[in-house]
Amino acid sequence: MSETYSYLGPSGTFTEAALAQVPEAEGKDWRSVNNVGEALDDVVSGRSVAAMIAIENSIEGGVTATLDALANIPGLRIIGEYLVRVQFVLVARPGTTLDEVRVVNAHPVAYAQTRKWLDANVPTHGHIPSTSNVAAALALFENDLADAAIAPPQIVQHHALEVLAENIADNANAVTRFVLVSKSAAVPAPTGADKTSIIAELPEDRAGALLELLEQFSTRGVNLSLLQSRPIGDALGRYRFVIDADGHITDERVADALLGVRRFSPHILFLGSYPRADKAPVQYTARYDDGVFLEARQWLAALIAGEPEA
Amino acid sequence: MSETYSYLGPSGTFTEAALAQVPEAEGKDWRSVNNVGEALDDVVSGRSVAAMIAIENSIEGGVTATLDALANIPGLRIIGEYLVRVQFVLVARPGTTLDEVRVVNAHPVAYAQTRKWLDANVPTHGHIPSTSNVAAALALFENDLADAAIAPPQIVQHHALEVLAENIADNANAVTRFVLVSKSAAVPAPTGADKTSIIAELPEDRAGALLELLEQFSTRGVNLSLLQSRPIGDALGRYRFVIDADGHITDERVADALLGVRRFSPHILFLGSYPRADKAPVQYTARYDDGVFLEARQWLAALIAGEPEA
Amino acid sequence: MSETYSYLGPSGTFTEAALAQVPEAEGKDWRSVNNVGEALDDVVSGRSVAAMIAIENSIEGGVTATLDALANIPGLRIIGEYLVRVQFVLVARPGTTLDEVRVVNAHPVAYAQTRKWLDANVPTHGHIPSTSNVAAALALFENDLADAAIAPPQIVQHHALEVLAENIADNANAVTRFVLVSKSAAVPAPTGADKTSIIAELPEDRAGALLELLEQFSTRGVNLSLLQSRPIGDALGRYRFVIDADGHITDERVADALLGVRRFSPHILFLGSYPRADKAPVQYTARYDDGVFLEARQWLAALIAGEPEA
Amino acid sequence: MSETYSYLGPSGTFTEAALAQVPEAEGKDWRSVNNVGEALDDVVSGRSVAAMIAIENSIEGGVTATLDALANIPGLRIIGEYLVRVQFVLVARPGTTLDEVRVVNAHPVAYAQTRKWLDANVPTHGHIPSTSNVAAALALFENDLADAAIAPPQIVQHHALEVLAENIADNANAVTRFVLVSKSAAVPAPTGADKTSIIAELPEDRAGALLELLEQFSTRGVNLSLLQSRPIGDALGRYRFVIDADGHITDERVADALLGVRRFSPHILFLGSYPRADKAPVQYTARYDDGVFLEARQWLAALIAGEPEA
Repeated sequence: MSETYSYLGPSGTFTEAALAQVPEAEGKDWRSVNNVGEALDDVVSGRSVAAMIAIENSIEGGVTATLDALANIPGLRIIGEYLVRVQFVLVARPGTTLDEVRVVNAHPVAYAQTRKWLDANVPTHGHIPSTSNVAAALALFENDLADAAIAPPQIVQHHALEVLAENIADNANAVTRFVLVSKSAAVPAPTGADKTSIIAELPEDRAGALLELLEQFSTRGVNLSLLQSRPIGDALGRYRFVIDADGHITDERVADALLGVRRFSPHILFLGSYPRADKAPVQYTARYDDGVFLEARQWLAALIAGEPEA
Repeated sequence: MSETYSYLGPSGTFTEAALAQVPEAEGKDWRSVNNVGEALDDVVSGRSVAAMIAIENSIEGGVTATLDALANIPGLRIIGEYLVRVQFVLVARPGTTLDEVRVVNAHPVAYAQTRKWLDANVPTHGHIPSTSNVAAALALFENDLADAAIAPPQIVQHHALEVLAENIADNANAVTRFVLVSKSAAVPAPTGADKTSIIAELPEDRAGALLELLEQFSTRGVNLSLLQSRPIGDALGRYRFVIDADGHITDERVADALLGVRRFSPHILFLGSYPRADKAPVQYTARYDDGVFLEARQWLAALIAGEPEA
Repeated sequence: MSETYSYLGPSGTFTEAALAQVPEAEGKDWRSVNNVGEALDDVVSGRSVAAMIAIENSIEGGVTATLDALANIPGLRIIGEYLVRVQFVLVARPGTTLDEVRVVNAHPVAYAQTRKWLDANVPTHGHIPSTSNVAAALALFENDLADAAIAPPQIVQHHALEVLAENIADNANAVTRFVLVSKSAAVPAPTGADKTSIIAELPEDRAGALLELLEQFSTRGVNLSLLQSRPIGDALGRYRFVIDADGHITDERVADALLGVRRFSPHILFLGSYPRADKAPVQYTARYDDGVFLEARQWLAALIAGEPEA
Repeated sequence: MSETYSYLGPSGTFTEAALAQVPEAEGKDWRSVNNVGEALDDVVSGRSVAAMIAIENSIEGGVTATLDALANIPGLRIIGEYLVRVQFVLVARPGTTLDEVRVVNAHPVAYAQTRKWLDANVPTHGHIPSTSNVAAALALFENDLADAAIAPPQIVQHHALEVLAENIADNANAVTRFVLVSKSAAVPAPTGADKTSIIAELPEDRAGALLELLEQFSTRGVNLSLLQSRPIGDALGRYRFVIDADGHITDERVADALLGVRRFSPHILFLGSYPRADKAPVQYTARYDDGVFLEARQWLAALIAGEPEA
């Protein structure tokens, strides 16, 4: 049986563009799904070996559906990270002109990211929300509730749509971060340019608990590239934190920080260590090098064994 | 001219229920708008004296549109906080029965909060997203794309809809927190049960910057009830933080913490000090009492003035 | 050959009283020496199996000669701690009366601790410093430079001296802490009421280095009972710190703190883990229990081994 | 009546050399006293306008008698700081040769600092302690208990002594720090190269209290050049801390740190702000500049006054 990869479809989405960056997925079955829940369900049930899901957008922030799904579905692991530059076009049924556009179909995130352009160029437009960027465009063929749709540029490779305007995103540098999620508990080998993701709850009974959580990393020289609070959901003011730390679980300083978090947090979930999308080697000062940790452990072991100090 | 209050409408939304808690709004004009942007626009332009907007949900977390709008629109102030318990009903056109439901119209947040009930009771349903909980219900009269809608219980006071199921929220204790926003720079008088909201950016060039931000509060004994990261939007990994601190800006410990944040942060926005919705008096240890701050200032002033110590 | 114990003599000193508390020293050779250097020299050279030396006084603070000797002489270990209540008598040659006393011979520490009594009762006295409390008394028989001496109460068991006044220490609760020092690298077994002593230098190139040193203990819930700065001696403002931490090196939280200090400090000296003189069991919160450390290590090992989380 | 300055005499001591650095003392009465207590007594009683006392030695550390006297005598202020390089000569009665030396008279601190030289060059010597470096030398004329004395080089300008050896200090860079102490509550004007000295007790009931004390300075970017623990004296393990902070009490960051310590400590004593002996301008990062503090206060005041943000 062939391996299957799930992704938020249909063809033409940014998620598909992320999956296209995965060498292992080339030539395999790609399964288009409707939302993050379905994608992760495919992985849990074994229908797919992995799923590509959006986890963070430089404009909109963490994708809360993804973060909450990762927190609540046990047994998942992130095995890779991919970046896709976000750009949009305004498309319509062939023959439509820009001045005819009254109602725009758009995924809420895409709508938010093109709002300024729309306000300037289609000032009196209405908005119909859609479940995905591609679905917004396809709805143009299904009904005439909308006159135009906001879609990724690659949409025209798949569908006979007219591009009314290009590069309409308000921020030209927007980027979305995707992760490839599998059930495999094996951790990818360290590359020197890795990330480690966890989700940790704070103890309830302690003031300054977040400070203490962050210190587990800072006192070992481990930098964080993501810190996103998410409600645990049982009461206002109770949070878990999604954390991306620079480095690999087999790096001594990262391992020691994880030990500290494990001892401190009532609930910690290890989401994985995996190569960074930008392949930038992790920076840290010499005092947090693996050798320093090893030397200290040998020193301690000798003391406990009753050997005289060298 | 009469005073106007803006809220996310139409009649029957949770936001309207929040506005109904404001004594000053009683008997005034209530203006129903379509989104947070419009509501705040009304305030900025002077069309309304204040707008009620959702800021946090115990299940979904911070309302990112609200948090980002408050960060980006200058001159706004929060003057009050209100809590509304979130509960949902499944409604349909009169005559529809539950087993006839195939497609459900629902605001994405409402859909997420009733997903378990739907999966159990309408397992093969499809979902059409809507812009508000009430709009989802009203769409039933406009077209037959959906067979049922998820709506707040109070919807039936306004519209002739059939309730197919009550209390369908997956979490019975879900609550949404709303804030009343105005342009008034005058700070409401302290009540002893107050909250202070700010938005602060972290300096770019410094590791451990979030730790330092949090310490500004912890070293003055000021507890935080909200800490939400939001992307600044110019690059991945750059965040601002929305913070709710216990206490009023005229409390010495809060004022001193704000001074610390002001000196530290490249950009801080004061969103206001206002009475807490739950009216719970702020707890703090005696060492952070106003009198302790005043005594220390008098001591320092005497030293600098060259007076001998008492 | 019989075992020998060195102590600051001669007979009658507080140090001798401390050595009398050591069961293992009973019936062995006790060697009286003149200062801390000689006592430790005996241990290093093998002349003695152990030396009893004063390390801290509740009035005078750390005994700097002891602290500096421990820092500079390699291979020494503290194997026990003993407390002696400090009390003084004023003695004279038989026949002398209090109103005849003009000059008092006294060790500087004893002189400092009885100064108020002397000022009140012998207001016009002069002071001759002596090398030990007993030497001060013995000098009365050697020359008549002094009329009286300050000495420990037990002096009269050894010498024919007249007690002019008893209990003349200004602070009735003064106590001196002694440590028994040997060359043995074997660490005494943990008793649950232990202390661990180290001497650590601060890295030169880092502001807040002392804060970082202290955090190594506080973040593992390890309390410090002694923190004494001593100049390294090469320049003003360069310090090493003598630290007594609650607990035993085989306690996980203490071991982890020592690892942290070892990684951080350019020079750390382990002085030993040994039973506390007061036999008070070490207090710590459950979150720093050995089991918590072990569980975290097992969790991490399983993750690295690629085993699924339980 | 002429102004008088007290110092630890007699003529020829390092303390006299420190007093010789004070321009205001030139041509005034210099009063030689026997110890720190007498010197400070002169100031308190008004006999002297100021007293010069040793406070720290680069080899021996803080002068405990001075630190404790400053902690216990109210109303004193440090108004200046002076450094004297410490060097010693071995002197004897005329006609004595080095190989005739059996017993050496020396102040204990001087003895400790020349011990290595003595062990190498006068291996079988005995030691008689003296109350001051000069007194040790003068005793050679009073009795023949000792054959030689350790003294400051300048001793030979005052007395007919034979120098047996020069530069016998074990550390050629040893330096002693002196402070000039008066009763004046007026703080010397800031020079940009100032020091601020305080003595602070830790609250009893709080773990991590020292960490919190140090953070008062570190979070305001104030560097410490001295941190010396001293027992409060009522029980083992209870300490006060003598602290020298870079900067002047009228520097905003120093003032704010002092406010923090005042609020935190059950007992803080301000010993003074005064020019540093080394005249080295205080270094600090721009974020702790006075202007940053002033701007923050203006911002806060405007918010509380209800003025719109600029």
